[in-house]
Amino acid sequence: METNQPLIDLKSRIRDIPDFPEKGILFRDVTTLLKDPAAFRQVIDQMTDYFRDSRATHVCAVEARGYMFGAPLAYNLNMGFIPVRKPGKLPYDTISQAYELEYGKNVLELHRDAVGPGDRVLVVDDLIATGGSSRATAQLIETLGAEVAGFGFIIELGFLKGREALEGYEVYSLLQY
Amino acid sequence: METNQPLIDLKSRIRDIPDFPEKGILFRDVTTLLKDPAAFRQVIDQMTDYFRDSRATHVCAVEARGYMFGAPLAYNLNMGFIPVRKPGKLPYDTISQAYELEYGKNVLELHRDAVGPGDRVLVVDDLIATGGSSRATAQLIETLGAEVAGFGFIIELGFLKGREALEGYEVYSLLQY
Repeated sequence: METNQPLIDLKSRIRDIPDFPEKGILFRDVTTLLKDPAAFRQVIDQMTDYFRDSRATHVCAVEARGYMFGAPLAYNLNMGFIPVRKPGKLPYDTISQAYELEYGKNVLELHRDAVGPGDRVLVVDDLIATGGSSRATAQLIETLGAEVAGFGFIIELGFLKGREALEGYEVYSLLQY
Repeated sequence: METNQPLIDLKSRIRDIPDFPEKGILFRDVTTLLKDPAAFRQVIDQMTDYFRDSRATHVCAVEARGYMFGAPLAYNLNMGFIPVRKPGKLPYDTISQAYELEYGKNVLELHRDAVGPGDRVLVVDDLIATGGSSRATAQLIETLGAEVAGFGFIIELGFLKGREALEGYEVYSLLQY
């Protein structure tokens, strides 16, 4: 942190939306945090401080909200940024990884030459729920011979036990619900 | 720029992919630029220098590649970040704007409370082609009573005349093809 401003209560900048995207789900909306310059800056600075000594080489994030936090973190840490995308979006040779949802499956893709042996990759997303997409991202990175240096999330929904799906990895979250 | 390193030839970091997403289109792949920490940093720093005196209050970007450049720029300029998204992705009340594609239409959405009167918004994307999505984004911002402070693109495909679709606005691009 470059200033001595008092820390913002970040939870107060997150908006709760009941029944989105479907009935019974309480959605944690980060757009109200992103549009507050001081809160957005604090989030990126806290992540930067935490991962400064991680000896990571890249930051990887999953489409699309993950990019809003992962790209500034990569910039701040002087690392390359690696996007994981939904099928058909990456233009070069890709590898893909499926993961289970409550109903059905999703697939994520990564460029085959995105990372490789010797690379250490931080995986960043706005939120961890069950951890499915994060685990799939780790599998993609490891398939290419690179190492996962850790996971960083703004929000952790503890009751969904995503941390257990990422057992053996370092997992950092700023806000827990 | 904080250093006196010689500038990188950014075009050398962009990968050309023929026939993506369809036959006859030469796709400019920015993932090779993003994964190079010095090139990524130079892009964000050049954008930051250009828009430092823009008196803008927010940076807005369109899903999904726009976020990779818009979010670090917002962070660097100490501004809020505003995501424009594809339909159904934003959880709160939205306004929407359709725009023409070569075949068919696309629709973009913005939260109704994202910006308002008195706000000045920079619109950032990785690439400007015909300018359709950028123009739709300007319409969304202006519908909410805010002002467009300018447009910033990494890549401008000059032969598609997107700049003409944004006549009357300030348009800055780092690389022209």
